[in-house]
Amino acid sequence: MKTHLDSNLKNLLDLIKPANTEIAKIAKEKLDNLTKPKGSLGVLEDCAVKYLSARGNIEAKINNPVILTFAGDHGVAKEGVSAFPQEVTVQMLANFANGGAAINVLARHAGAKLKVIDIGAAADCKDPKIIKLKAGYGSANFAKSEAMTIEQCEQAIIYGAKIAAESIEEGADLICTGDMGIANTCSSSAIYSLLLDLPAEDTVGRGTGIDDMRLQKKLNIVRDAVKRFSHLKDEPFSVLASVGGFEIAGICGAIIQAAAKKIPVIVDGFISGAAAITAIKAKKEIMDYCFFSHLSAEAGHAKVLNAMGVRPLLNLDLRLGEGTGAALAINIVTASIKIINEMASFKSAKVSNKE
Amino acid sequence: MKTHLDSNLKNLLDLIKPANTEIAKIAKEKLDNLTKPKGSLGVLEDCAVKYLSARGNIEAKINNPVILTFAGDHGVAKEGVSAFPQEVTVQMLANFANGGAAINVLARHAGAKLKVIDIGAAADCKDPKIIKLKAGYGSANFAKSEAMTIEQCEQAIIYGAKIAAESIEEGADLICTGDMGIANTCSSSAIYSLLLDLPAEDTVGRGTGIDDMRLQKKLNIVRDAVKRFSHLKDEPFSVLASVGGFEIAGICGAIIQAAAKKIPVIVDGFISGAAAITAIKAKKEIMDYCFFSHLSAEAGHAKVLNAMGVRPLLNLDLRLGEGTGAALAINIVTASIKIINEMASFKSAKVSNKE
Repeated sequence: MKTHLDSNLKNLLDLIKPANTEIAKIAKEKLDNLTKPKGSLGVLEDCAVKYLSARGNIEAKINNPVILTFAGDHGVAKEGVSAFPQEVTVQMLANFANGGAAINVLARHAGAKLKVIDIGAAADCKDPKIIKLKAGYGSANFAKSEAMTIEQCEQAIIYGAKIAAESIEEGADLICTGDMGIANTCSSSAIYSLLLDLPAEDTVGRGTGIDDMRLQKKLNIVRDAVKRFSHLKDEPFSVLASVGGFEIAGICGAIIQAAAKKIPVIVDGFISGAAAITAIKAKKEIMDYCFFSHLSAEAGHAKVLNAMGVRPLLNLDLRLGEGTGAALAINIVTASIKIINEMASFKSAKVSNKE
Repeated sequence: MKTHLDSNLKNLLDLIKPANTEIAKIAKEKLDNLTKPKGSLGVLEDCAVKYLSARGNIEAKINNPVILTFAGDHGVAKEGVSAFPQEVTVQMLANFANGGAAINVLARHAGAKLKVIDIGAAADCKDPKIIKLKAGYGSANFAKSEAMTIEQCEQAIIYGAKIAAESIEEGADLICTGDMGIANTCSSSAIYSLLLDLPAEDTVGRGTGIDDMRLQKKLNIVRDAVKRFSHLKDEPFSVLASVGGFEIAGICGAIIQAAAKKIPVIVDGFISGAAAITAIKAKKEIMDYCFFSHLSAEAGHAKVLNAMGVRPLLNLDLRLGEGTGAALAINIVTASIKIINEMASFKSAKVSNKE
């Protein structure tokens, strides 16, 4: 497998710098002077510091959150590792277009724009509300071969980056990621096992709700893939090509682009997290731009978040994907920015400080 | 101490009925037919079932959340159990009136109406934006005597109920509770220890951030109060009068009234939870109407929520009170009602269900 990077992708990674520590310091001082005991807004205070230092601008606001939901199919679905048939991916694209899926409801609720991108579904959804940027018609079955060629994978990453770049040019100040793809927890488990060096037992779960027989099959497939591709484990994009999928690569590209443009990202759950860890392993500074929205009910998510050293914002036993966890977390991150901008200080409000 | 109930309060408690189990069943069936794997929206699905069955109406919506923040002073502050001086309570009332406190910011963010009620501050805030319904000018020091007479306590409960009733008549379909009162974690710890039979070590924490010396003093005061009032532990309103405070009683009254009118309540954190457990011990059906917004950073909150058998919606290390956790949780409960009302079903969206 070719492991050198497409020059566009390499250029993008080179643009990414760590968050601004000076802004972080100013934000902390500002928070400590607001009319509340120091640190008493907990994670909300951490979110404000993280967002502003990532933006590199103490005045930054959140007015235009955008959710990018990428859809793709997985050859490994043929192995019977999902509770739902593969045709659901394209049926759900029509449901997204019609506004009837969970992510449509939660995007409207959050006041966020939703873009759904068909980056690799096995069939076509004709609705013009679905953005078509296809890097392929479903990945190959990673139980038998590589899921994607490195060229296909890098194409999907570049497409994801392109959509994020367009959104940011249109004014997006917070990017949320989401996924749709039958069998994509299987793919994500393999990515986590390879990149985080975790045994398949720690990363494989029941996805949309599979029985014991399918769970055992899924476990065997991931275990076998980890063996076959373990020599690539220090090359995140090669891992992504070998066991990932088009939508995971698209999400990975969106995260990389957002970080390059200093726009923070809310990473959804298990699938988006696999895309995030791929990006972070390629460039560790990307961590500075990522909020992790929730701990999902997918077995293994707690272990992978722990291995990544991150604390999720929510814990609501969600296991749907689509960006639903990220959509719910917009409220928290946005609240944090309003807190730092709109609260009175002890001095301005004439309130006595700690004795 | 007189332990019989004021007849108004008794009438109110008699009105409270359990949530509607038939509506709960209909809501669950409706959720199971939406385009998502069964149960995959986790706690969000539980919230929808809880809200609709409490309302007793499968068509109920949330359009008018109202936050009720009650302020009161505590005689026990004289013992030096808080990091802030008592004058902060009334200074914060002015801050609430001017819109500069955390709860103002988060109420605006949630699209919720905020009412701040001075039910027992030791001084007066002249701003007309603060609702004055004073049951007293600060409670007595419960380290030396009862905090309130049973008549004062019941008056504060009735005032809390009155404010909730007015809000519901104005259209409130979700009530959130909040508190302000220097030294009120001390009071709340004593309530929890008495009503949940937990040792002071399990319920006492650092509040707004006290040092080891003050923590030891607080621990001794709560331990001593538990001994002095343990004979009352099966009489929740007597416990509330003995070691509680005006704002805790006001919150308790608001919760009781909301349950009587079948309007669900989002209980804030450590202080509001002490009011909630008082109400629930008086009438266990009140539990059907309560969402618990967050696990706070106050040591002991995890133990008391566990003893109450409830799972909080958020875990963000908040320890501010005012209703800030409840305000953030509005987003979750409201999202759950939109999900059940706005999502497409497998049939309507022509999406294949589980194989």
